[in-house]
Amino acid sequence: MKSHREELTFEVPTRRAFVNITHQVEAALKKSGVKEGLCLVNAMHITASVFINDNESGLHADYEKWLEELAPHEPTAQYKHNRTGEDNADAHLKRQIMGREVVVAITAGKLDFGPWEQIFYGEFDGRRRKRALIKIIGE
Amino acid sequence: MKSHREELTFEVPTRRAFVNITHQVEAALKKSGVKEGLCLVNAMHITASVFINDNESGLHADYEKWLEELAPHEPTAQYKHNRTGEDNADAHLKRQIMGREVVVAITAGKLDFGPWEQIFYGEFDGRRRKRALIKIIGE
Amino acid sequence: MKSHREELTFEVPTRRAFVNITHQVEAALKKSGVKEGLCLVNAMHITASVFINDNESGLHADYEKWLEELAPHEPTAQYKHNRTGEDNADAHLKRQIMGREVVVAITAGKLDFGPWEQIFYGEFDGRRRKRALIKIIGE
Repeated sequence: MKSHREELTFEVPTRRAFVNITHQVEAALKKSGVKEGLCLVNAMHITASVFINDNESGLHADYEKWLEELAPHEPTAQYKHNRTGEDNADAHLKRQIMGREVVVAITAGKLDFGPWEQIFYGEFDGRRRKRALIKIIGE
Repeated sequence: MKSHREELTFEVPTRRAFVNITHQVEAALKKSGVKEGLCLVNAMHITASVFINDNESGLHADYEKWLEELAPHEPTAQYKHNRTGEDNADAHLKRQIMGREVVVAITAGKLDFGPWEQIFYGEFDGRRRKRALIKIIGE
Repeated sequence: MKSHREELTFEVPTRRAFVNITHQVEAALKKSGVKEGLCLVNAMHITASVFINDNESGLHADYEKWLEELAPHEPTAQYKHNRTGEDNADAHLKRQIMGREVVVAITAGKLDFGPWEQIFYGEFDGRRRKRALIKIIGE
C-alpha cells in the first residue's frame, strides 16, 4: 500500500470565499503514484469546509446567501460561542452544512469524477492562514 | 490490496426521489471479494446525494418537505445559478444537506451496518440519466 | 494491509447530547498498529451523528439551539415518520445536518488533525443503548 500526504494553505482576504482546489488535488494524486485507491481531502480547521459541487459563480453566490440565511453572522451576540471572544460561531455552523471532507475514488490514476464534479475549499472565517489536508492511500 | 469499481445508473421519472440502493452495494461488495476494507458510494452528479438513513416512507416524505422548506425550488428566479438557463439551483443546495457520499466499513465480507442503516440515492433533479459510483478497497 | 474494528457504546441519559470520543478513537488507533491509512468513525444508528468540530460548550449549546430551529422536535405530529409510533423524526433530520461519519487521515501513527479538531458523537434520540463504529485500515 502506498500513501501520500500533502497540505494546502490558504489566506483568503475576505471572511468567506470558495476556492477551487481540484487541480491541486490532481497534482497531489499524480505525485502519489497511486492508481487505485481513495483520496481524502479535509479542512484542518473547524470553520472551513471541503466539498464537491459546481464551478459556477452564480451558484457560489447562492450558497453564500443561503448559508447566511441558515446561520447568520449577525448579530454575533446571538451565539454563546462568541462569548469566548470569537465572532465566528456562524462559521462553525455553516461548515456543518457544507461538510468537513470529501472522499474521492481513484481509478486508473485519476480522480474518478462525474461530469461536473469539482473540489472546493469553503472558507467561513478567513483573513488568516488556514490549511486543508490531502491524504491518498492505495496502490 | 484489491479494488473494485462499479457504476449505478438512474433515470428517475420525477424531479425528486429517494432510491434504496443497499442491495446493489451489497452485490458489488460480493463481486469485489473484499473481506476487510472500505466502501465509498457517491453521487457522480452535483444535484444528487448518497446518504444512509431509514427505509421508511413517512420519513422520506418528511425529508422531502423539510428540504423544500430549507431550499425551495420556487421561485426559481431567486437563485443566480438559474440565470445560466438551469432551474435546479435548489437541487445543488439540497444535496449539501443530504451529502454527496457515504463511506461504509467492510468487515468479514459484509457492509458493517447498525440495525437500521440503509443506503439511498437522493435525486433532486431527475427526469434524466444519472449515475452513482461504488468504489471498494481492501483485502 | 492491516485492519481494526471497534465499537463504542453510549447510553446518554438525555434526548440530545454531544460526547467527545477523540481519546477513544486515539486508543483504537494505537491498538490497530496502523501508521499510514484512514480511520472511519460512524454512528451505527440513524438518529445520531459523528462529526468533527470544537470542544467548546458554548458552541455545543449553539448547535443544540440551531438544530432545534432547523428541525424542531415539537410538535411531533408535524412529521409523518412519527405516525409509526416514534417521536424521533426530528432526530433523523438533525443527523443529516451534522453527518453520519468522519474519515480521518492517519499519519505516522496519529490522527492527522488540525489544531482544534475533536471527534464528537452527536446523540439526537438518547436514553437507550446505541453504538458507533471505528474502522481503521492501512499499514
